[in-house]
Amino acid sequence: MSTQLEKARNKQLTEEMEIVARSEKVNVKELMRNIAKGYAVIPASDLHKSLKPIGIGKGLRIKINANIGTSVAKADVAYELEKLRVSIEAGADTVMDLSTGGDIDLVRREIIKHSTIPVGTVPIYQAVCDRNEIVGLTANDFLNGIRKHIEDGVDFITIHSGVTKAAIPLVRKRTMGAVSRGGAFLIKWMEHNQRENPLYDNFDKILKMAYKHDVTLSLGDGLRPGCIKDATDKAQLHELRVLGELADAAYKENVQVMIEGPGHIPINEIKKNIDLQKKICKGRPFYVLGPIVTDVAPGYDHITSAIGGALAAFYGADYLCYVTPKEHLGLPEIDDVREGVIAAKIAAHAADVALGRGREWDDSMADARANLDWEQMMKLAINPSKARQMRKECSPKDVNACSMCDRFCSVKLMKEMREKRCE
Amino acid sequence: MSTQLEKARNKQLTEEMEIVARSEKVNVKELMRNIAKGYAVIPASDLHKSLKPIGIGKGLRIKINANIGTSVAKADVAYELEKLRVSIEAGADTVMDLSTGGDIDLVRREIIKHSTIPVGTVPIYQAVCDRNEIVGLTANDFLNGIRKHIEDGVDFITIHSGVTKAAIPLVRKRTMGAVSRGGAFLIKWMEHNQRENPLYDNFDKILKMAYKHDVTLSLGDGLRPGCIKDATDKAQLHELRVLGELADAAYKENVQVMIEGPGHIPINEIKKNIDLQKKICKGRPFYVLGPIVTDVAPGYDHITSAIGGALAAFYGADYLCYVTPKEHLGLPEIDDVREGVIAAKIAAHAADVALGRGREWDDSMADARANLDWEQMMKLAINPSKARQMRKECSPKDVNACSMCDRFCSVKLMKEMREKRCE
Repeated sequence: MSTQLEKARNKQLTEEMEIVARSEKVNVKELMRNIAKGYAVIPASDLHKSLKPIGIGKGLRIKINANIGTSVAKADVAYELEKLRVSIEAGADTVMDLSTGGDIDLVRREIIKHSTIPVGTVPIYQAVCDRNEIVGLTANDFLNGIRKHIEDGVDFITIHSGVTKAAIPLVRKRTMGAVSRGGAFLIKWMEHNQRENPLYDNFDKILKMAYKHDVTLSLGDGLRPGCIKDATDKAQLHELRVLGELADAAYKENVQVMIEGPGHIPINEIKKNIDLQKKICKGRPFYVLGPIVTDVAPGYDHITSAIGGALAAFYGADYLCYVTPKEHLGLPEIDDVREGVIAAKIAAHAADVALGRGREWDDSMADARANLDWEQMMKLAINPSKARQMRKECSPKDVNACSMCDRFCSVKLMKEMREKRCE
Repeated sequence: MSTQLEKARNKQLTEEMEIVARSEKVNVKELMRNIAKGYAVIPASDLHKSLKPIGIGKGLRIKINANIGTSVAKADVAYELEKLRVSIEAGADTVMDLSTGGDIDLVRREIIKHSTIPVGTVPIYQAVCDRNEIVGLTANDFLNGIRKHIEDGVDFITIHSGVTKAAIPLVRKRTMGAVSRGGAFLIKWMEHNQRENPLYDNFDKILKMAYKHDVTLSLGDGLRPGCIKDATDKAQLHELRVLGELADAAYKENVQVMIEGPGHIPINEIKKNIDLQKKICKGRPFYVLGPIVTDVAPGYDHITSAIGGALAAFYGADYLCYVTPKEHLGLPEIDDVREGVIAAKIAAHAADVALGRGREWDDSMADARANLDWEQMMKLAINPSKARQMRKECSPKDVNACSMCDRFCSVKLMKEMREKRCE
């Protein structure tokens, strides 16, 4: 087995590249060149049989990820499979299974089996769940968790190798410390054991495992800021520089790699964050978690992150992790998953349009609106069933118009003017 | 009676300026200078007795407006007063009564009587409703509608004086034509009567009426684009130039004035739109309707406009008109009003934070989160009752954590580390 990256560097077109190029309507050789340079990835494990591959990175549509998975409070395989189904239906390009409760092995295997989109995981949760502790874990425990996930057929894994001992004094200066679970586990482990991060020390072994099944590494931002006050601080930038070095090491070994990024970032710092990542990490795909542009809106963080995500993608981020309305409050339920995916998709599409991609969809909607073709408007809506239900609730007196304007409908006036002119 | 603008130009401090400066924690003399230059306004009719004045423009917090009002399909005074109450509770800085159904005089008078925040209207609807026609209206009918609203005590009025005959050929080239109701009425009127826009021809008379009670003019964008395809086109820019001239004329007569703006605008054109308005209209307050950054999301246009609004405000817009989830589908109900106001407030606050204003709120939330002080988090939330309800639904096993992470809570790990160090 070789990797998409290795094949691209050898100028060898793969079936996966062909599929991605066709679906994105891009030149396959240009895609191959972008993969060869590390600017784009195709996360596709050779063990994930039901997968329809997608690409992430330069020249490609902005992708969105939905986090699903159990917690101690709620652990039900069928419920997670329903979250998977709803995520795909609502437009997620990938899912990550972040299960930490119940039979997490079973949940993961079922998700991979049923998913037609790439599946990612955070294997450090596996080590902590399997052994039910943190500070007593050995380097092998961490590596075994990773191996298990790779052998189950995940397409990409978040690895928090960039959280190093040197960053701990910087983390202590923060208001929120490390809000990434993986980051917090590793800091606790390093502090207790007075040793370097085992995922950093054993990065070469992780690369060998990932290479074997062409699993893409998503270098986790264990030190992403957890509040606006901690944004773009020394701890975050220290980790970013380490991630840049690790990405180079992965590239040398022909392992596909993405970089994860913030987090809570005010609007005025988003461009700077993207520019820094692209510079330090040499144009590698940037996977942002948010960014959330204000801390004050629990219950509405799908909106705070749609603002940040749209802007980040416009400035060059490639891949947006959704945030649901339940963020900062609890584990998302099915409806939260759907609303989270749609908010992220709006952000991604708005950025795509601004970057000159995918406006046919908007233009078709505009035509439908100009013609007062309600059936077509409903079909084209990002969530047709919600749009239909809302229109039904309003029940306008004039069926051609809507209940906001009724006989004062400007669109109707315009349509009459056009038609009169054509007579 | 004189106006805030005239007094500011005469270096005369008013009670309204003092109130605004105190509430915004800005220097009152600087506020006065900004009003004198036309960079800021205080929409406060001398007839609106229950008003607590606010300022809009340079150096001030970004303001948000909620549109309420009846339609033919639903016309109920009590229901509109409830929308007013909910708007204020959710954080609206102003409301506009856009009623077009039922006894619109009664609705407007009741809203003004009960509102502690500035009330705006679009008097052209009055003329059309009173006479139940468009093309047969005389210039006096239009002016009488304006006079009625001013004498009822509205604080600001949208006047579509910038839609001139010269723009009609440009509007014809569009996909969506004019989606502003006022704009569409006037185009129909001008086409039928083959005469210039009476609100343009009689602008001097409108100024005299507005001056009398210090009603602020909001120069309406009757030609705002109704889809991404029509964004920043010749029709829109033609009107913007006319608005610039009209704003100069108003300023000469000491009438306070704001400029209304788009509309449907892709992310990459937002900065250009703000820069153009600020240049052409000499730094006058910019009141944007959205902007909506993609056309494909009916049911979610509070999100598409939160993205556009946050960005517009960051680039220099001063005042955001909310968009509710029902936009493009029907008249908003109470819940839509609340969700619309909160989405706009998120956009406004995110921009304020990026511009260096109001971050104390975010920092307090970060402190509450770092301390796992859930009661304080709920109190600080932008919508406390929604945050409480969502957390309740989740019911974590560990009451200090949330149901997403439970025993894997990174914040708890960080808190333990801090406390251990302090021992």
